[in-house]
Amino acid sequence: MTITVPGPTIGVVGGGQLGRMLAEAAAPLGVEVVVLDPTPDCPAAPVARDQIVGDFDDPDAIGRLADRTDALTYEIELADPDHLATASAEADVPVHPTPETLRTIQDKFAEKEMLSEAGIPVPAYRRIDSVADLEAAVEEFGGVMLKAREGGYDGRGNVPVHAAAEAESALREAVGTAEEPAALAETFVDFERELSVIGVQGDDEVRTFPVGENVHEAEILRETVVPARTSDDVAERAQAVARDVLDALDGRGVFGIELFETREGEILVNEIAPRPHNSGHWSIEGAVSSQFEQHTRAVLGWPLGSTRQRAPTVSANVLGTVEESRPATLAGVDRVFGHEAAHLHWYGKDEVRPLRKMGHVTATGVEDAAVDDLLASTRELRDSLTFQ
Amino acid sequence: MTITVPGPTIGVVGGGQLGRMLAEAAAPLGVEVVVLDPTPDCPAAPVARDQIVGDFDDPDAIGRLADRTDALTYEIELADPDHLATASAEADVPVHPTPETLRTIQDKFAEKEMLSEAGIPVPAYRRIDSVADLEAAVEEFGGVMLKAREGGYDGRGNVPVHAAAEAESALREAVGTAEEPAALAETFVDFERELSVIGVQGDDEVRTFPVGENVHEAEILRETVVPARTSDDVAERAQAVARDVLDALDGRGVFGIELFETREGEILVNEIAPRPHNSGHWSIEGAVSSQFEQHTRAVLGWPLGSTRQRAPTVSANVLGTVEESRPATLAGVDRVFGHEAAHLHWYGKDEVRPLRKMGHVTATGVEDAAVDDLLASTRELRDSLTFQ
Repeated sequence: MTITVPGPTIGVVGGGQLGRMLAEAAAPLGVEVVVLDPTPDCPAAPVARDQIVGDFDDPDAIGRLADRTDALTYEIELADPDHLATASAEADVPVHPTPETLRTIQDKFAEKEMLSEAGIPVPAYRRIDSVADLEAAVEEFGGVMLKAREGGYDGRGNVPVHAAAEAESALREAVGTAEEPAALAETFVDFERELSVIGVQGDDEVRTFPVGENVHEAEILRETVVPARTSDDVAERAQAVARDVLDALDGRGVFGIELFETREGEILVNEIAPRPHNSGHWSIEGAVSSQFEQHTRAVLGWPLGSTRQRAPTVSANVLGTVEESRPATLAGVDRVFGHEAAHLHWYGKDEVRPLRKMGHVTATGVEDAAVDDLLASTRELRDSLTFQ
Repeated sequence: MTITVPGPTIGVVGGGQLGRMLAEAAAPLGVEVVVLDPTPDCPAAPVARDQIVGDFDDPDAIGRLADRTDALTYEIELADPDHLATASAEADVPVHPTPETLRTIQDKFAEKEMLSEAGIPVPAYRRIDSVADLEAAVEEFGGVMLKAREGGYDGRGNVPVHAAAEAESALREAVGTAEEPAALAETFVDFERELSVIGVQGDDEVRTFPVGENVHEAEILRETVVPARTSDDVAERAQAVARDVLDALDGRGVFGIELFETREGEILVNEIAPRPHNSGHWSIEGAVSSQFEQHTRAVLGWPLGSTRQRAPTVSANVLGTVEESRPATLAGVDRVFGHEAAHLHWYGKDEVRPLRKMGHVTATGVEDAAVDDLLASTRELRDSLTFQ
C-alpha cells in the first residue's frame, strides 16, 4: 500500500468527546474529520473540519456524511448499522468496524452469544424473553444482573435481581415492559478488579495496549490505572483474551474490551465497545501512539502505531458533580496546571449535567513511580475541581 | 488567580503551522483559538475555532481579532507591533509577548543592542547605514555576515561579505539598496554547533526546555536533536544564557533562543523568535508539556507546565523538495507509519514550494537510546518522503 498525505477524510457518526479527541489526533496525520451530531457546535465541532447537524439514525444525514468523506466510522453505539451499511454501499466508502459488528455489540445477548461461540470466557448468562425466563434464571443463579439487550450503557438499564418475586418489576425498570421483554440475565461476578484492554484491529495486524485497571463507582468509570495492579500472569491472560475477542470481531478499528478478573484469577469478558473507549484515554500521554491515532490509522487500513507504554499513567474522569444541569464552568483548574505531570482534557460541553463526562485529567509518573501514589494524587487533583 | 474552563479565547496573528499546532494544543485546555491570516483556509483553519481572513498588518482585521478574543499573540514576526498595541488598547485585551519586544526583535540591530546592554554575549556586530560603514566593518573583522535589519528570516537577507570591494553589491542584495541601507554586519562565528533553548516566560515564573542541537543546511533548519550532543557544562551555560535572555525581554510567552557554541566553548546568542520555534517541535512528543501548550498557558498568565524531557527525541523537517510549486501530495508516508516511534506532523498546506516547511517527523527513543542512531534513522525516514 502506498500512503500519501493529505490523506482521506473520515466521516464520524457522533461528535462528542471521542470524536473531538479523534479529530485532534487525526490532524497531524494529514487526515481531516467530519462529524455527524444532532447538537449544533458539538464537542468535536471546533477542532473538526466540519459538522453535519443531524441525528445518528437519520439516513439522509448519514448519506451526506458518506458523500463527502472517504471512510466512515462511529464514536457512539447509537449509530444505526443499517443506515451505515446503506450509505457505505451507495457512496462506495468503507465503514469500520463493520455494521455487522456494531449490530452484534448493540445487542448484549447477541454479543455474549458471539463470544461464547468463539470460546471466549464470559459470565454465565441467560436470554430473557419473559417473566418466567427471569424467574428461572434467578432460581438457577441465586440472583442475577438483569440487562436490557439494547440501548443501555454506563450501567443504565442494568438492574440487580435477588429474588424471583422481583422479576416483573425489575423487567419494567430495565426494559420498560414485562411483556415480551428483550433482556439478558447474567450471574453476579465476584470480581477482584475490573480490567480493560484497548485492542486495535488493523488491515493485517492486531495490537493491544497494556492492561488498564478500571475503578468504577455506581457503575460509572472514575479512574483508569495503567499498568493494572495485578499479576503478570493475569495481565498476560487478559491480553490473550483480548486478542481472541479481536479475532472474533469483524472490521478494523479500536475496540475497548472490558474484563473482570475474578477472585479465582479467571478472566471474563464483560462488555465490548466498537470504538475508542474511556479507559483508553490514558494513551494520549501514556503510550507512543494514542488510541485515537490508532483508530484513525486502523479505519484507513494504514499501518498501526506502537502501543508501548511510556510511563505509569492514571486518567481520572471529570464528571458533572452537580444536582441539576446548568452552563458549564469548571473551577480549580489552577491546581491541575500547577501539577508537574498532569494534563487537562476539557471536552467543550456547554452544559454540565449530573454525572455527565465533562473532561478528564491524566497524570504520568516517572519510571518506577508507585502507581498507587499516582492514583491517589490524580484522584485528589480531580476531586479538587468543582463546577461553579 | 482562579482559573476556570472553558477558558479565554486567544487571537493569533498568523495561521501557519505554528498557529495550527497552537490550536491543537489549546483545545484540550478548554482554550479556543481564532487566527488572522491572509490565505483562506490557512493551515490552522481546520483545527481552530475560526479564521479572520486578512493581512498581518491590516489594522481593521487586527481590531476585529481583538474584539472577539480575550488575549492576543502572534506566530509570525511579520505581525505589526503598532497595530497590535492599538488593537490591544482599544479592545482592552492583553498582547503577549509585548509589542515592544516584537518591535525590538523585528530589528536585528535593536535586538543585538538590547542583548548587549543586558550583558548577554552576542557575536561582534556593527550598525551599517552606508557603503562606508560596511567597508569599515569588513576591514575590521576580516569579512562579515551582512544582514538586513528587518524582514529577513531563515537566512533570507543574509549575505556573506569577504572583501570591502563587494560592499555595494552586497548591500543591494541584502537590503535592496546601497543608499541609506538599514543593515547589520556581524563577524563570522567559528562555531562547533548550533544550539537552541526554548524558553517560557510566565506570569511570575520562567522555565526552559532542555538544550536542543540544530542541524542546518543552506541556513535552513533540517533537524533538531534533544538532548544536544554537547558537554553538560556547555548545556548548563546555554540554559543560563537563555534565562538571561528571558529576563531581558518583556511580556509572557514562548521564545525560541538560537545560540552558537563556539569552538572555544563560548555561548553566543544568534537570534530570538518571540514565539514557538521550529526547534521546539520535538517537545510535542518529547517533553511533558509542549512548547505550544506552554505558549497558551503563558499568554494567558496561567501556571506553566513541566519542561521535563521524556525521552531522547529528534525532529526532522519535511521541506518542499521540489523545483517548482505545485499542489502538495506527500508520498512514502507508509515508512513513517511503519516506524515504531515516529510521528508525522502534516501542516495542511495545499501547495508545496521549494524548501517550504510542509511538515515534520519526530521520533522518540527509549531511555539511553543513542541519539546519533536516532538522528540517522529519523533523517533517513524523512528523506524517504517525496512529493508526487
